[in-house]
Amino acid sequence: MNEINLQLKKESELPLFQQLYDYFKQEIISGNCKKNEKMPSKRQLSAYLHCSQNTVQAAYYQLVAEGYLISREKSGYYVADLGNVLHIKEVPPKELLSPPEEGRIYYDFSYQGVDHDSFPFSIWRKLTKEGINEYDRDLLKAGDPKGDLGLRESIAHYLHYSRGVNCSAEQIIVSSGTEFLLQLLIQLFDANVVYGIENPGYEKLNMIFKSNRANCQPVALDDRGMRPDSLRESQASVACITPSHQFPTGTVMPVSRRIQLLNWANEAPERYLIEDDYDSEFRYSGKPIPSLQGMDETGRVIYLGAFSKSLSPALRVSYMVLPLHLLGEYEKKLRFYICPVPKIDQKTLCRFIDEGHFERHLNRMRNLYKQKRETIVAAIHKNLPQAEIQGDSAGLHLLLRVNNGWDEAELIDAALRKGVRVFGVTQYYFAPPQKNQESLLLLGFACLKIEEIETAVILLTQAWKNNGDAF
Amino acid sequence: MNEINLQLKKESELPLFQQLYDYFKQEIISGNCKKNEKMPSKRQLSAYLHCSQNTVQAAYYQLVAEGYLISREKSGYYVADLGNVLHIKEVPPKELLSPPEEGRIYYDFSYQGVDHDSFPFSIWRKLTKEGINEYDRDLLKAGDPKGDLGLRESIAHYLHYSRGVNCSAEQIIVSSGTEFLLQLLIQLFDANVVYGIENPGYEKLNMIFKSNRANCQPVALDDRGMRPDSLRESQASVACITPSHQFPTGTVMPVSRRIQLLNWANEAPERYLIEDDYDSEFRYSGKPIPSLQGMDETGRVIYLGAFSKSLSPALRVSYMVLPLHLLGEYEKKLRFYICPVPKIDQKTLCRFIDEGHFERHLNRMRNLYKQKRETIVAAIHKNLPQAEIQGDSAGLHLLLRVNNGWDEAELIDAALRKGVRVFGVTQYYFAPPQKNQESLLLLGFACLKIEEIETAVILLTQAWKNNGDAF
Repeated sequence: MNEINLQLKKESELPLFQQLYDYFKQEIISGNCKKNEKMPSKRQLSAYLHCSQNTVQAAYYQLVAEGYLISREKSGYYVADLGNVLHIKEVPPKELLSPPEEGRIYYDFSYQGVDHDSFPFSIWRKLTKEGINEYDRDLLKAGDPKGDLGLRESIAHYLHYSRGVNCSAEQIIVSSGTEFLLQLLIQLFDANVVYGIENPGYEKLNMIFKSNRANCQPVALDDRGMRPDSLRESQASVACITPSHQFPTGTVMPVSRRIQLLNWANEAPERYLIEDDYDSEFRYSGKPIPSLQGMDETGRVIYLGAFSKSLSPALRVSYMVLPLHLLGEYEKKLRFYICPVPKIDQKTLCRFIDEGHFERHLNRMRNLYKQKRETIVAAIHKNLPQAEIQGDSAGLHLLLRVNNGWDEAELIDAALRKGVRVFGVTQYYFAPPQKNQESLLLLGFACLKIEEIETAVILLTQAWKNNGDAF
Repeated sequence: MNEINLQLKKESELPLFQQLYDYFKQEIISGNCKKNEKMPSKRQLSAYLHCSQNTVQAAYYQLVAEGYLISREKSGYYVADLGNVLHIKEVPPKELLSPPEEGRIYYDFSYQGVDHDSFPFSIWRKLTKEGINEYDRDLLKAGDPKGDLGLRESIAHYLHYSRGVNCSAEQIIVSSGTEFLLQLLIQLFDANVVYGIENPGYEKLNMIFKSNRANCQPVALDDRGMRPDSLRESQASVACITPSHQFPTGTVMPVSRRIQLLNWANEAPERYLIEDDYDSEFRYSGKPIPSLQGMDETGRVIYLGAFSKSLSPALRVSYMVLPLHLLGEYEKKLRFYICPVPKIDQKTLCRFIDEGHFERHLNRMRNLYKQKRETIVAAIHKNLPQAEIQGDSAGLHLLLRVNNGWDEAELIDAALRKGVRVFGVTQYYFAPPQKNQESLLLLGFACLKIEEIETAVILLTQAWKNNGDAF
């Protein structure tokens, strides 16, 4: 290791570990630190730089996580072979409101992802560590194909008290992502079933049904959600809906429409509603509306849920609740599919729910996302007074009608040139939208920090000024 | 908590923690320990019983793992509500060779599962704990739909040096179980493709293809594996084979047959071979035969692999290697499917491979399974001299022809009555087997302990004596 030419600046805005990280990353990329070279120990380096060992630890962790260093057990840290580091990501500079570099995103209103800093890392680490337990003789076995009974019981209990879902653990099938659950349902139903999907709606639905050679038809919405007349016209016998918070429009389906759809389902024995309750945990005003499944007395509703929004999409845990008569079919035809969630993760999640951590986390997140939502709504009212907001009473995204006469592509491109990513709604249409529809944008707010939101909205304001093409 | 009427017996064969576990389990089941009651702390109990805190810890761990106790952070252990414990498993008694209770299995020659005690729990725990790292900003994001690049690079490297597979990380798709990979392939190929599957073969193949409404045809085997003439007759254009160790017959496909099948695939542009290399890590004699994929120069072979046998089926990690021209199709049509393996598990597995733990584990396991195989083969030769063994040069199971004139069902039932589970081969036939075929049994040996194997074989000998129906 060469001499270390670094003085940590305690008065800098940049945390010490970040300074250390930046320094070594540069040294490794430039080749000053050679591959396989041993790094100084945490003790040595902290003594040399007059910082804590924790600072060095954090920097080394980050360098390991990004593939610049390799940690060898009981030996120390070594410079990695950079041939293996394909994604060299630059740390975004800290200056705000300066012209961004071409194509760089500073603020991403993505509707995927969650607030990173609020994830209960230490509890999750503790539960996982305890779960990897040599005394648990079932830990290495494939386990119940529908998912571990303990986890299914925890989910059933949670669904009952928080979403009004009526079910036993037996009716729950744990899987990985909506796409895997829908594939199971397509195999469960007859090959010639027509599926009705919301238009606009979740973009993957269409892809999943097409890829599985199933017939799916777009069904029009109004301001209360899926239209029963359009559903009838579509000839669908299975309708996929998002009543808690329609994606992407944000409509919360009122009880009257729920009853209309349940009545539709009851008119013929082969009709079903697939209720995707993807972000129902986050509701900010009005009384919570229980799940459609909870209103269903005849076994017409299949309930889909997931931990993607409530915990993290990287956990890949979702589940469905089957009505009892479909459960019998499932056991007969599809029991050979093994639950894709690793046993350890199922155990961790089960304890996370059972010991009350999930409830506490949800309450914390609901408050945080409420604050984020209020911040973004206030920032839009203040900076974009002519714009209209829709669908913000629930969930982790809202819709914005900018009302400056620009079309969707112009709005998105101008925002991108300021380093801000927003999304158009057109991509969620499976059939062309009605004409005259003013362009609508989708803004997710889960991933942005509260203190970033107003800056991001100000950048959008600058981007969308009619004379704002100056740079 | 009532008084604790327990004296640990240090001279007992039963470990102390097990004695403690048995005692509290009984107290909880009987209701002497009431639900929500606080358990004594580890310190108190170890002082009272004159044992180490580790002993108490191990017993509490096990009771938590099985749902009898609940651990509350910073508070202690509490008796669980047994309404939630549905699977109360009894610890099997220790006496051997005494008549088993009705239906109880003492020795299970299952071919699923791995040797529990050899799993590298402490390394896995350490890597996982380090992976759950708040500084890793990508940890909560959904990540690359094909699987994290780091993990795919590790797998590519491993496949190259250990299995002779030619591929880059780009060609690898990480998923969860063969069934999910096959579903992707069915969607990738045309709807009218005919799939040829080995007969006998992996019982799920047939179910997966049928459930996905794909046409699959059984293809006959001979002593070198899938027969090219039968494959031609089947009209299949995609053939699923297990050349390293045919399931269930155990045949290792010789190079001549591999070339015949590659030639078949090269005769028409839409022909492919799906090579399932499910237990190729375990080969005990002769030179290792590299993968079929490594012999393929025209992109006709799709390689499937998994960590089920080499690490644990409960990890749910499998992968496939696509030829380049299929990869393009995959990216176009199926990229919307998100890798089902949780990000944390991908990171742990990646480091496990990169830091050399996987290689060490495989070498250890190969030796252990070799010993188990030698033990079972020797025990059969000694105790069942008239029986014949097949397919034992690789993998984690072998076939046994008992040659006592009984049929498969009689053999299995008699073994079960002695508390030993063995499997018949008939269930793996998708089309009826030829007549005159003497009954064959399948015996997996990965899960049994070395010291259990001879006892289990002796029990089989007793079970299969022609005058052995005495009890």
